[in-house]
Amino acid sequence: MSSVWGKNIKLSIFGESHGRAIGVNIDGLPPGVELDFSFIKREMKRRSPGRNSINTKRQEVDQVEILSGYFNNKTTGTPLCAIIWNTDKKSKDYDLIKDIMRPSHGDYTGNIRYKGYNDYRGGGHFSGRITAPLVFAGSIAKQILAKDKIIIGSHIYSIGEMKDKGFDYIDIEKEKLVSLQESDFPVLDNDIGQRMKELILSVKKDGDSVGGVVETVILNSPSGIGSPFFDSIESTIASLLFSVPGVKGVEFGKGFQISKMKGSQGNDQMYFLGEKIQSYTNNNGGILGGISSGMPIIFRTAFKPTPSIGKEQRTINISKRKNTSLKIEGRHDPCIVPRAVPVVESVAALALLDLMMDVKKYD
Amino acid sequence: MSSVWGKNIKLSIFGESHGRAIGVNIDGLPPGVELDFSFIKREMKRRSPGRNSINTKRQEVDQVEILSGYFNNKTTGTPLCAIIWNTDKKSKDYDLIKDIMRPSHGDYTGNIRYKGYNDYRGGGHFSGRITAPLVFAGSIAKQILAKDKIIIGSHIYSIGEMKDKGFDYIDIEKEKLVSLQESDFPVLDNDIGQRMKELILSVKKDGDSVGGVVETVILNSPSGIGSPFFDSIESTIASLLFSVPGVKGVEFGKGFQISKMKGSQGNDQMYFLGEKIQSYTNNNGGILGGISSGMPIIFRTAFKPTPSIGKEQRTINISKRKNTSLKIEGRHDPCIVPRAVPVVESVAALALLDLMMDVKKYD
Amino acid sequence: MSSVWGKNIKLSIFGESHGRAIGVNIDGLPPGVELDFSFIKREMKRRSPGRNSINTKRQEVDQVEILSGYFNNKTTGTPLCAIIWNTDKKSKDYDLIKDIMRPSHGDYTGNIRYKGYNDYRGGGHFSGRITAPLVFAGSIAKQILAKDKIIIGSHIYSIGEMKDKGFDYIDIEKEKLVSLQESDFPVLDNDIGQRMKELILSVKKDGDSVGGVVETVILNSPSGIGSPFFDSIESTIASLLFSVPGVKGVEFGKGFQISKMKGSQGNDQMYFLGEKIQSYTNNNGGILGGISSGMPIIFRTAFKPTPSIGKEQRTINISKRKNTSLKIEGRHDPCIVPRAVPVVESVAALALLDLMMDVKKYD
Amino acid sequence: MSSVWGKNIKLSIFGESHGRAIGVNIDGLPPGVELDFSFIKREMKRRSPGRNSINTKRQEVDQVEILSGYFNNKTTGTPLCAIIWNTDKKSKDYDLIKDIMRPSHGDYTGNIRYKGYNDYRGGGHFSGRITAPLVFAGSIAKQILAKDKIIIGSHIYSIGEMKDKGFDYIDIEKEKLVSLQESDFPVLDNDIGQRMKELILSVKKDGDSVGGVVETVILNSPSGIGSPFFDSIESTIASLLFSVPGVKGVEFGKGFQISKMKGSQGNDQMYFLGEKIQSYTNNNGGILGGISSGMPIIFRTAFKPTPSIGKEQRTINISKRKNTSLKIEGRHDPCIVPRAVPVVESVAALALLDLMMDVKKYD
Repeated sequence: MSSVWGKNIKLSIFGESHGRAIGVNIDGLPPGVELDFSFIKREMKRRSPGRNSINTKRQEVDQVEILSGYFNNKTTGTPLCAIIWNTDKKSKDYDLIKDIMRPSHGDYTGNIRYKGYNDYRGGGHFSGRITAPLVFAGSIAKQILAKDKIIIGSHIYSIGEMKDKGFDYIDIEKEKLVSLQESDFPVLDNDIGQRMKELILSVKKDGDSVGGVVETVILNSPSGIGSPFFDSIESTIASLLFSVPGVKGVEFGKGFQISKMKGSQGNDQMYFLGEKIQSYTNNNGGILGGISSGMPIIFRTAFKPTPSIGKEQRTINISKRKNTSLKIEGRHDPCIVPRAVPVVESVAALALLDLMMDVKKYD
Repeated sequence: MSSVWGKNIKLSIFGESHGRAIGVNIDGLPPGVELDFSFIKREMKRRSPGRNSINTKRQEVDQVEILSGYFNNKTTGTPLCAIIWNTDKKSKDYDLIKDIMRPSHGDYTGNIRYKGYNDYRGGGHFSGRITAPLVFAGSIAKQILAKDKIIIGSHIYSIGEMKDKGFDYIDIEKEKLVSLQESDFPVLDNDIGQRMKELILSVKKDGDSVGGVVETVILNSPSGIGSPFFDSIESTIASLLFSVPGVKGVEFGKGFQISKMKGSQGNDQMYFLGEKIQSYTNNNGGILGGISSGMPIIFRTAFKPTPSIGKEQRTINISKRKNTSLKIEGRHDPCIVPRAVPVVESVAALALLDLMMDVKKYD
Repeated sequence: MSSVWGKNIKLSIFGESHGRAIGVNIDGLPPGVELDFSFIKREMKRRSPGRNSINTKRQEVDQVEILSGYFNNKTTGTPLCAIIWNTDKKSKDYDLIKDIMRPSHGDYTGNIRYKGYNDYRGGGHFSGRITAPLVFAGSIAKQILAKDKIIIGSHIYSIGEMKDKGFDYIDIEKEKLVSLQESDFPVLDNDIGQRMKELILSVKKDGDSVGGVVETVILNSPSGIGSPFFDSIESTIASLLFSVPGVKGVEFGKGFQISKMKGSQGNDQMYFLGEKIQSYTNNNGGILGGISSGMPIIFRTAFKPTPSIGKEQRTINISKRKNTSLKIEGRHDPCIVPRAVPVVESVAALALLDLMMDVKKYD
Repeated sequence: MSSVWGKNIKLSIFGESHGRAIGVNIDGLPPGVELDFSFIKREMKRRSPGRNSINTKRQEVDQVEILSGYFNNKTTGTPLCAIIWNTDKKSKDYDLIKDIMRPSHGDYTGNIRYKGYNDYRGGGHFSGRITAPLVFAGSIAKQILAKDKIIIGSHIYSIGEMKDKGFDYIDIEKEKLVSLQESDFPVLDNDIGQRMKELILSVKKDGDSVGGVVETVILNSPSGIGSPFFDSIESTIASLLFSVPGVKGVEFGKGFQISKMKGSQGNDQMYFLGEKIQSYTNNNGGILGGISSGMPIIFRTAFKPTPSIGKEQRTINISKRKNTSLKIEGRHDPCIVPRAVPVVESVAALALLDLMMDVKKYD
């Protein structure tokens, strides 16, 4: 079981990297929503490979075809299924690695889980490519949230050891988030961004890869969204973030840093600003008791380095039951982080929308 | 919605800190399991307050009463409901804070979410006390997993800035984990443990609190457990961990640290050790593509400092709609981390058991 | 898995007939609902045994104890758990039948399903007694629906071959439904009701039992509740009705009768009555395409005769692996139908409320 | 919410009658299952229109295209998505009825539920056409069940007032079920079958339609499948049957008839036949306490007459807010029952497989 998520919004994803098509069925969307396809296209493009010198040269178009649930330029309220055809497939590339398990990929565990029947080509259903339908779904969620002025933005918080400035936890401009969304390589400090790019190109030249962290903010979320325990905002967002290939850590607010603090430092003291309830700090990242406080919701997502590297690695041949080594040829992202940004934002949008629907009706 | 979790094992929790009783209904347990109540008692005791000078002096007994699903000293396979009566209630303590929102607690967000009807006494349903039924459920899951030699152990990885040694990611002795389970204050380095305790006592004396991190290992998990995407091991464990009050970060394997690595450093290269498949490193923490590899499953959970502190804090009176300040009197843990250890292990046991049941039938 | 139901309202039931207690955890109730306990008591009493000469003489009190989720005389919005202690237990009665499977009970199938570990006393978790918590939950749902003037009423449509008049499908008076709710033995034609009672007493004298049908109407449901396919009103109500022990058939509107009609007879033609949309007939029982039309929702539920009878029956001894025979002594309802009426209404109320919450927010 | 069903097998359906495509995403299938596409094709053909003079002349090909989850002629174990393109669309036919609500269709309730944004062409998502993906999914479930010799067969139990013989409840030949599966118009008594066809043709000539009942048997189900209460076999099968457009009644075993019996007549007395446990009768239709007894599982499903008829009907124009009348032209089944047979079998297969997976692992 792997492909169905959500309570009010139900996502059901499918597909393999080199199969016929990938896609998502989305149930529970409000009816009557007119979609902005140029926005969707931009979001899809942010995730797509081949945009610049940093990323893989695979030129997939990622053209979304809507099969259902959209009629007369509006959502119908019934399931919206959308697919993306796989066009740029070179399956022969993968014949060699049918039996040779790529280290730190899902090749080996997928082989065990599915008893050798999984589609191994390009990682099959384990491929990061399956996040494209999530970005499509997220781009719809973002549009629905935007009607309530809720906006989600991210920047590349770090690449390897190189760190961007962090978001201000209290005072975040909506315009800044919009401009980050429009950037190929969103950072708060452009000089650092430049050096991050150079770092990525340098590991690429070495046939190596590098990881990084994405920092995300959800602005203007109303207070009172989420629930204690199993449907906390943290649980809901994290369960989706950890669904994204390559994610190994998630923290909210000050996260691991708050664990080092004293209560007198970490606690977010509160006050009335006119009628509005604010906190002086936002170390809890806009979430208390699993529920939104109205302060910006802030979290960071850690991505491991792309497992596909050109350097020789020791591994196993699973059918011959023997040790071997492997150099992964071909086109691979030296760093997945820039393309992961819209994926992170998308699942956050979906998580928040799902929880919003517990307390708000969309008409 | 907040209280139901799981697919094969369904947990349904209930209760408030100062209500009549708290408890859990567990559905989907295999029939015919004889429970070791001394083990359950030990686990409950690990979580219970008042054990030593470090913790709160509330002397709750946390006696579990099983209402159903257990017959002739065996689980029946039908729902097992267990409750814990609330005995040591001093609700008058909380009358003052009915309207005064304690900073960094769920008081304010709960008030908004439940329109002021939530039970505010002692945090009500938001209380860490509701984790007691989770420990009960987890202590059953642990017993079932133990039949397959799966064992879960943890140590206090850090308190404030003070760090214990970390687990070896490859070579972990079962006996070590057992002895950690039996400790009040489980650490790998006892000297550091001593200093951690001193730190806690010192913040306590200040009327302050401190956070920390728990590191957990699941040993002997078979390979092939979990699924890609929404039912990945990471998603499933994290969704439960982020349900636990006070958790602000979760990372698997090297977590945020792996994001700083290059692929050539971070990738877990593999080899056959006889018939067994191993990896030289275990930076992915025993999980690849969301599925267990057979290596130890490792994760860390970051807890914020206990929000209840004796120092004066600025906050709001929500009915009078004005600013005020608050000094929280009474008995409160200066550090929640030692008592959180069995909670973390419990939810990990429940998450793993739920995923195990996708691929294994218990007879 | 057996005990968790619902999407917006989550029910989690537990207990065995002769165990410690039975109960239900209800999550997702709106906060701030003041419960009318005299109404709840009346509903519980309608289901309870021992009310009159017709039913079993077991004098269970069915006193509900609320453990959580209710504070200051209002629902909190967090899980409301309620239990009923089992007091009038005579477990020795059942020692004989530990191995002797009562025909048409769940004894045999429960034994197989739970590998002999199920609590066999009084049917254990299979007992009709477990419907008491459903009536409690339903009595809350009814109160919430009543605020929108939605009312649910039933009558005993038939006992054995003896049939009451049917409901008018178009024109049903709210007052009539209220008076049916207040009756021990609700029928539309009191003369027939009298003869039904005589029939029940006569089969009782014979040591036999008899089945029957309950007809139920939901009045004033707004149009637009429910969904096509898996969450149709019919699917949702039927999935709960078929959870009730003894139910073997469910039909909506004209049900099996409509299958004999021509389209020109069965179709519900429509018209505007002022601003209101009506249909001339209501053969579809207020549901089209799985969604409410605003006409009365009507369905019938068929109950088999109580399996416990005093006559000798052939059956098996499952441990001795041999044939035997059995006469079931003791107190048993000769007809379950009168006590089933509030159960049917309760699950209908819960089903409708759960679907309502897809389109309406309760504040 | 309407489109996601199941626990171990997750079905997610989508599509509209005249949209781009309809389909289903199936998650949780065991890996390594080789599909028999000629069997699937036969099943799809059984449901497809235009096979004979009785049915509509729409010549849809219903060619299934698998997009994912099938690799090297085996299921992968990851989500299997399959779509059917809509080719024979004449949307102009439906422009007239955009505002004129067809009686007894979902037009009106869908309009309310989805605020007028639903795709009205050919019933949109409410169309019986959406059952085609269910038949595809069911044809896979049937193949998996067949490995355990479980076979599902049905006959047309009645058309209008005309009744076929019923199944023997004890002694059913597998071969008979196979031959029923292969028939266009499965009946037990061919003479009656001939007269049923004549009846259908006669109502067709009148521009009218007629309903009917399907009787289904599941042979060789092992005992111990299903659970008490919410996951009873009855609840699970019924929740899917009532998802099928046109179904208004479902009964198991003797169903409504058993409600007329005395316990001494209705009870299924039991005996050992060698090592095998049997019952003398099977009035409970192979299900006791919600769980299979090993006897044949038997149920009947009542379908209403096709709502689309050529006769003039009174109805409303929903935009003009006034009364009007309607004659539905074009090609419509005078009786949906023959084509519904494989749909009923398919959802029964899916329900049983889902419940089987609670107690059996498929390798």
